[in-house]
Amino acid sequence: MIKERLAALRKQMKELSMDAYYIPTADFHESEYVCEYFTCRKYMSGFTGSAGVMVVTMDHAGLWTDGRYFIQAENQLKDTTVTLYRMGQEGVPTVTEFLQGVLQEGMCLGFDGRVVNSLYANQLKEALPGVNFAITDDVVGKIWTDRPGLPDGEVYILEEKWSGESCASKLNRVREEMKNRQAEYHVLTTLDDICWVLNVRGTDSVASPVVLSYALIGMDTMTWYVNEKKVPASVREALAKDGVEIRPYNDIYEDMKTITETVLYDPKKVNYALSALIKNSVCADNPEVLMKAIKNETEIANLRQCHIMDGVAVTKFIYWLKHEIQKREITEWEAAEKLSWFRAQNENCFGGSFGTIGAYNANAAMMHYSPSKDKPVYMKNSGMYLVDSGGQYWQGSTDITRTILLGDICDLWKDHYTRVVRGMIGISKAQFLYGCRGLNLDILARGPVWDIDIDYQCGTGHGVGYLLNIHEAPNGFRWRIVPERNDSCVMEAGMVTTIEPGVYIENSHGIRVENEVVCEKRGKNEYGQFMGFETLTVCPIDLDAILPEEMTKSERKWLNDYHAYVYKTLLPFMNEEEATWLQTATRSI
Amino acid sequence: MIKERLAALRKQMKELSMDAYYIPTADFHESEYVCEYFTCRKYMSGFTGSAGVMVVTMDHAGLWTDGRYFIQAENQLKDTTVTLYRMGQEGVPTVTEFLQGVLQEGMCLGFDGRVVNSLYANQLKEALPGVNFAITDDVVGKIWTDRPGLPDGEVYILEEKWSGESCASKLNRVREEMKNRQAEYHVLTTLDDICWVLNVRGTDSVASPVVLSYALIGMDTMTWYVNEKKVPASVREALAKDGVEIRPYNDIYEDMKTITETVLYDPKKVNYALSALIKNSVCADNPEVLMKAIKNETEIANLRQCHIMDGVAVTKFIYWLKHEIQKREITEWEAAEKLSWFRAQNENCFGGSFGTIGAYNANAAMMHYSPSKDKPVYMKNSGMYLVDSGGQYWQGSTDITRTILLGDICDLWKDHYTRVVRGMIGISKAQFLYGCRGLNLDILARGPVWDIDIDYQCGTGHGVGYLLNIHEAPNGFRWRIVPERNDSCVMEAGMVTTIEPGVYIENSHGIRVENEVVCEKRGKNEYGQFMGFETLTVCPIDLDAILPEEMTKSERKWLNDYHAYVYKTLLPFMNEEEATWLQTATRSI
Repeated sequence: MIKERLAALRKQMKELSMDAYYIPTADFHESEYVCEYFTCRKYMSGFTGSAGVMVVTMDHAGLWTDGRYFIQAENQLKDTTVTLYRMGQEGVPTVTEFLQGVLQEGMCLGFDGRVVNSLYANQLKEALPGVNFAITDDVVGKIWTDRPGLPDGEVYILEEKWSGESCASKLNRVREEMKNRQAEYHVLTTLDDICWVLNVRGTDSVASPVVLSYALIGMDTMTWYVNEKKVPASVREALAKDGVEIRPYNDIYEDMKTITETVLYDPKKVNYALSALIKNSVCADNPEVLMKAIKNETEIANLRQCHIMDGVAVTKFIYWLKHEIQKREITEWEAAEKLSWFRAQNENCFGGSFGTIGAYNANAAMMHYSPSKDKPVYMKNSGMYLVDSGGQYWQGSTDITRTILLGDICDLWKDHYTRVVRGMIGISKAQFLYGCRGLNLDILARGPVWDIDIDYQCGTGHGVGYLLNIHEAPNGFRWRIVPERNDSCVMEAGMVTTIEPGVYIENSHGIRVENEVVCEKRGKNEYGQFMGFETLTVCPIDLDAILPEEMTKSERKWLNDYHAYVYKTLLPFMNEEEATWLQTATRSI
Repeated sequence: MIKERLAALRKQMKELSMDAYYIPTADFHESEYVCEYFTCRKYMSGFTGSAGVMVVTMDHAGLWTDGRYFIQAENQLKDTTVTLYRMGQEGVPTVTEFLQGVLQEGMCLGFDGRVVNSLYANQLKEALPGVNFAITDDVVGKIWTDRPGLPDGEVYILEEKWSGESCASKLNRVREEMKNRQAEYHVLTTLDDICWVLNVRGTDSVASPVVLSYALIGMDTMTWYVNEKKVPASVREALAKDGVEIRPYNDIYEDMKTITETVLYDPKKVNYALSALIKNSVCADNPEVLMKAIKNETEIANLRQCHIMDGVAVTKFIYWLKHEIQKREITEWEAAEKLSWFRAQNENCFGGSFGTIGAYNANAAMMHYSPSKDKPVYMKNSGMYLVDSGGQYWQGSTDITRTILLGDICDLWKDHYTRVVRGMIGISKAQFLYGCRGLNLDILARGPVWDIDIDYQCGTGHGVGYLLNIHEAPNGFRWRIVPERNDSCVMEAGMVTTIEPGVYIENSHGIRVENEVVCEKRGKNEYGQFMGFETLTVCPIDLDAILPEEMTKSERKWLNDYHAYVYKTLLPFMNEEEATWLQTATRSI
């Protein structure tokens, strides 16, 4: 099947005089998750992993993916004639190096210019001097006969009682930034930023309530390019009041050709096809990113409620699991479904904010593990279940991880567990001067595991959207300086970030504990503005897996204070048995 | 007197057609401390502070200095006609803004091109388009009749048993870097870097054993521009074996004119007059900086000995002070002198590595305080004495601070003291992955004082030279990202850095505790290379000022282990009374 698709693609490539065709895993908007319509790379290679790039030439096809997917890709590429390129391994060429090897001067590289961002396309151009770029054809689209359609769910308004700021006010702030940059227009293509400005939400991504669309903001105008069928009259009317005009999704490409004024855009985010139509530009990060990251008072007040509702669901789930597992074996999948059910009991909840990671013992050592319905993994009343999940609510998005003791574990696991909890507490209780970045604070979470020669090999935490993307820039906790990520921004009051250290021991066990915190201002004096964090997540941390004597007095105090707050806050929502258990689960240590 | 000097300067400026004359506080080598010959700004303004810039026009004279010196400068500038510009205060123009205000197109700014670095001079040029620069005249030198001469102390060789690497080997490594940069020559003007390459030392700075000189390194040649009278025949012969030719100090300016090949230089370090003579250049940080910062095994072994000798002196001093103060009042100055005397008892010690800061109670709140002989401050058997000092030895340079309890102090002071000690321990016992920078670790030292809304408003630590400058780039511990400082480099094994958190409460008290540590490799595994610190400083930390219950178990363990090591190491050098006291001073808590 893959072979036939490759033959059909090559036939098209020949007609279009393309020597190589480049197929990334992306939509037109640089989204983290893409919907089925955009899975060209999967369609052409058979590889179903979430990350990968494919290149097809007349006599070769290659797939590049990272270490998480080597084994899966190897299996899925069998008998497809597609060669696996293991990224990061010694001697394996990068995509660019491969293209430099096969493309001579005068030859042609094709790709759909809408699924490659402007910055990367320009880097490719520099790396391939004399090579022609053909970017107007979606060649996979030409041969993909049973391609799924674009999503067409309805758009709805996020009222100001949830968003805390009108679309008009947000547009004013954006226009101020446009003035500062001497731009008359601003083209915005990132879906969460568009939804944030317009105070709209939709159903166009698996777990993020975004709407496939583009936006063009002028000084007095705003045009929203979106499939008009998705926009009910009430939404259209509401937006019209803020001067927002609605035009068909694809019309932005024609409209952009007519604009001669200076356009502000982010080349890391705007696709190459669109950016190529901009005549006068000023490039900068989208100003919406920082505005959206700093939650306003209404959003923060709503988030507090949101996390109580979410905490009720997760806490009831923990009670259920800890007790049910004493009676029978439960699969990872059933447990994850049960947690979704607990969340669904709340009418404010739209569903999950990302695919639940529910992993038992050794499976939890795989950071991006998904429980499988078809290959059930049975859990017993021993060991630990790690569950990383979240919900979307009118009151915001949540992301929480708890590792739950199902029975006895050894002292080594308890030591690891204790260090992870200490790490989470380390950032939670930090006080620091304004100006600190995530990279100044990361070691407070990572130190306890670094002390025993272990690292969790990923960031300690990420920003979280408000009824939007679960991974939101620019805030985060990391220790490495990665110039292309801008998550080493200064921590601003109102930024919501996860703290999720872990220990992952291959073939043995995995532990992660994750709370969300919102950055807040503390005292101001001659030394500057002191800052700290308020914890949003409300859910007990499993005391049975903790070695209290390995914690400092101030760590224990933080945990005891937190558990007292958890108990007081959740008690009204618990039934009698749950309440009795919760009292023990939140006891002072 | 100042008025007459200004009149004389203006007369010269008129003859040279200069409309403004710029006088910084600098020598020809961007040294941190300048010798008397280079104190033109002090001579012209009467202001004796260590930092300041002066600008003289035909009808105005201004002095710019920072907050540390506002009061002092105000007093010293009285009746001089020189206006004080308080840097950083609202509404106060910067030097550049001032120059932009007074210099029109076609007018002339004069300065001695040898005392302004290339980078800054070029920034000035950009800020002052159309203004002519006259850089060949040292106009202050023309009117300064009784100017002190340049220092002329003898140069000596640092043998390989001290340096651990021959000049030939160092030159090879530097030449490798020159090749990497495609440079045929490398001009080096920073005094400590020159001394490091040549394995020579001298007496041309107050406390740093450097030699006023320039170096021009070719692929097969090295020319050292230095006052030949200072170089004994034996040194000349030793250097000749490594192919080092000696030429008069100032000849580099003439010689540079003849070089047409590419010259590697650091525009932040090389002065503008010299850089202006370079025809083809490649600009980069001096490669010697990183090489010099990473101490070799011989240097580290010597440093261990060095810190034992230094620890003996400081510990005997502490014993003396704590006991003598029970009998009589002692001045800050006498105490500082006594400490110097204890150091001088060791034949390996050349003297202090910087001016001792010895401050009693409220005086210790001034971070850069110097005890005065003329205005004695008497200490009693109560309160605390902060002493920050160091020595220069064949075995290296030391920098140590102890705050010594002289009698009773209140619990608030003890709380502050305990937090400072906890901060020092925080970095000392950190384990981290290779790749961490000072800015990842700083909060481990600063956290305990940030927790109570206090900050020490300076870096936590700096690199230290080997029988060289006490402040050495590029390593350090700070939390702010300051792009123009490159002290956020990756911590490399062999780097020696101070850890010196503090608490400074104006008009009340000041506490600082400072150890030196050397970065070391620990275990390496699938997560990477783990790193940590070995403490070099060997001297008790005053337990009488500590609240043990405010420390964590692991902090107390670190301190007890450290004190056990201090006791074992210093015991052989103590007399009977000292030994008895030391046992108590290093007891387990």
